[in-house]
Amino acid sequence: MEGPYIEPSRLSTMSSIIPVALPQTPYNISVAPQNLDKIGDQLRDLVGKPLGEKVLVVSNPSILKQYGDRLQTSIQAAGFTVETCLLPPGERFKTPTTLQKIYDAALRMRLERSSTMVALGGGIIGDMTGFAAATWLRGINFVQVPTSLLAMVDASIGGKTGVNHPQGKNLIGAFHQPRLVAIDPMVLKTLPPREFRAGMAEVIKYGIIWDDTLFSALEASKRLDQQRYISDDLLQQILTASCQAKAHVVTQDEKESGLREILNYGHTIGHAVESLTGYRLVNHGEAVAIGMVAAGAIALSMNWWKTTDFDRQNALIEKCGLPTKLPEGLDHGAIVAALQTDKKVKAGQVRFVLPRKIGQVEVTSDVTPQLITQALQTMA
Amino acid sequence: MEGPYIEPSRLSTMSSIIPVALPQTPYNISVAPQNLDKIGDQLRDLVGKPLGEKVLVVSNPSILKQYGDRLQTSIQAAGFTVETCLLPPGERFKTPTTLQKIYDAALRMRLERSSTMVALGGGIIGDMTGFAAATWLRGINFVQVPTSLLAMVDASIGGKTGVNHPQGKNLIGAFHQPRLVAIDPMVLKTLPPREFRAGMAEVIKYGIIWDDTLFSALEASKRLDQQRYISDDLLQQILTASCQAKAHVVTQDEKESGLREILNYGHTIGHAVESLTGYRLVNHGEAVAIGMVAAGAIALSMNWWKTTDFDRQNALIEKCGLPTKLPEGLDHGAIVAALQTDKKVKAGQVRFVLPRKIGQVEVTSDVTPQLITQALQTMA
Repeated sequence: MEGPYIEPSRLSTMSSIIPVALPQTPYNISVAPQNLDKIGDQLRDLVGKPLGEKVLVVSNPSILKQYGDRLQTSIQAAGFTVETCLLPPGERFKTPTTLQKIYDAALRMRLERSSTMVALGGGIIGDMTGFAAATWLRGINFVQVPTSLLAMVDASIGGKTGVNHPQGKNLIGAFHQPRLVAIDPMVLKTLPPREFRAGMAEVIKYGIIWDDTLFSALEASKRLDQQRYISDDLLQQILTASCQAKAHVVTQDEKESGLREILNYGHTIGHAVESLTGYRLVNHGEAVAIGMVAAGAIALSMNWWKTTDFDRQNALIEKCGLPTKLPEGLDHGAIVAALQTDKKVKAGQVRFVLPRKIGQVEVTSDVTPQLITQALQTMA
Repeated sequence: MEGPYIEPSRLSTMSSIIPVALPQTPYNISVAPQNLDKIGDQLRDLVGKPLGEKVLVVSNPSILKQYGDRLQTSIQAAGFTVETCLLPPGERFKTPTTLQKIYDAALRMRLERSSTMVALGGGIIGDMTGFAAATWLRGINFVQVPTSLLAMVDASIGGKTGVNHPQGKNLIGAFHQPRLVAIDPMVLKTLPPREFRAGMAEVIKYGIIWDDTLFSALEASKRLDQQRYISDDLLQQILTASCQAKAHVVTQDEKESGLREILNYGHTIGHAVESLTGYRLVNHGEAVAIGMVAAGAIALSMNWWKTTDFDRQNALIEKCGLPTKLPEGLDHGAIVAALQTDKKVKAGQVRFVLPRKIGQVEVTSDVTPQLITQALQTMA
């Protein structure tokens, strides 16, 4: 690791607290440099039912090696007892079988209903730890410490937890809200650039669906394809604005019956592309980037938004080093067919989130297979 | 099966609807002879978000053989599509592995978020189906059709769902409220007498903790040790009053933080007895009966209630053919030690529900190991 890239004197001015004002289970997202060292205090000072003494940190070996000591020291200094549970890394281990490792650790540590599970890692660790916390003793406390950009701005907020079924992602899951999401932008320094770019796809999404100010701030940055080109101020703004957008949406629609659907911008065709390429060729963020270009093209052909807005979107995607074309050899008909199996299909009708302008989208069921195919043809 | 033992003209006067008025997820318990044939209509006419077209009935082979046709016919006649999923019977199959069978059926049938899982069976089927419904697509509709007395008066109400961990019962679970609980007293005719008696232990519990009218009605019946001695009117009263008691308690304390604890009357020592005898020698109801005698004896030694009330309790337990003595050879010290591992222990303190009189209990942490041992000695 390099030394800190933020002057210590500026640290305090750069922290944000974003409230997620759910009626039953309100919580905060804290975004602050060196936040890892302050998590224990935040756990001790939580508003609402206090946490019990026992804390189980769930992570994977490489992340725990990098950040585990600081996190554990902070939690212990606040008076908690900490143990750790390591899971093997990778999507293929996001299964009911791997969950047993967390349950076994919970049993070994004799976790009680007031105890806490802390997820230290990316989206996979967060989803699995959250599901284990949702289901151990019918629900114990849960805290997210996301270490990837994708997890920071998306997966860690909103209470979705789960594991995969051999035949589908996240089919087994639960809604379980965290008591706290603690984000430390400094940990992004060690994130592989391709994973950083994947997270940027979701950040661009928030710009399109919700926040044109964020979108313009991204446009104003000279380069965005690697985290080292992004200023500390812009990074703080990216994280804060993205979390605010997601917090707004999930607060208004906790269980995904309405507004939350707009978070799927770029995800409808994105999921099909991910699935048809076996989740290997393109990662989630790259697929979402492709999906946003496709949705933007459909919106253009329906006269929903202007060519200039569509071009601005695509230019920003390219500036982030994300793809705007379909992977070679991917059959357009197969994509259209795959949309039918999306779990969000309602009564057989594919629903699309389409942009009206930068910062505003709408949901529609009026997209025909022909319009989809035409849009895909422009992306070959 | 014998013919119906209730004259058809009386059926309509004997049905009860018990509302479970939870703020987020209100639902009804219907108790009516021949209810099995009316479930489809009740599903179609549910208040609130309507059910989608697809219904998956989960059961075990012998129960499905007895009641599956009537249930499916009723549901199909109301316009739903029905498929079934069979689980092997028995507590040893109440595991994450067996859950996969339900998940696989859900995937095969392409259940959507508006779809419904119906549990047709006893507590094990209800707990597993409820947990599968809680976790498939992060929560779909769930309906309970309990076929054992224990499930009717206890397990099917209150939203507790789950499976066992190899080292502890129900450690993996979720709160997931049903949309409907439909009870048909007629199905109790085919229940093995020992299982019927097990359910009567919970019925007596409701008399002690909540409803002295129910208690007196039970006392007035000449015999209670087999279902055939119980009049149709009394059976309807037993089911209605028990469900009302449980509905009252869970409505006031959905997530088990306070009042709900009184439902554990007889369960503290009961669980220890079940666990120490390997869940084979005594069944759950028998263990609860033993636990109620023990709790009653502790309450007596603390001058919490009168000898006459204690004697009335024990006489009723005996009239139901339930045990009032400890299994032979069970070590008292082992029972006291086992209490420490109960998952409801708070900060190492064993909490007991003790009676003040028939119809009223209180929770206390003031029971010393010595008092417990003394009580157990009277039951050898």
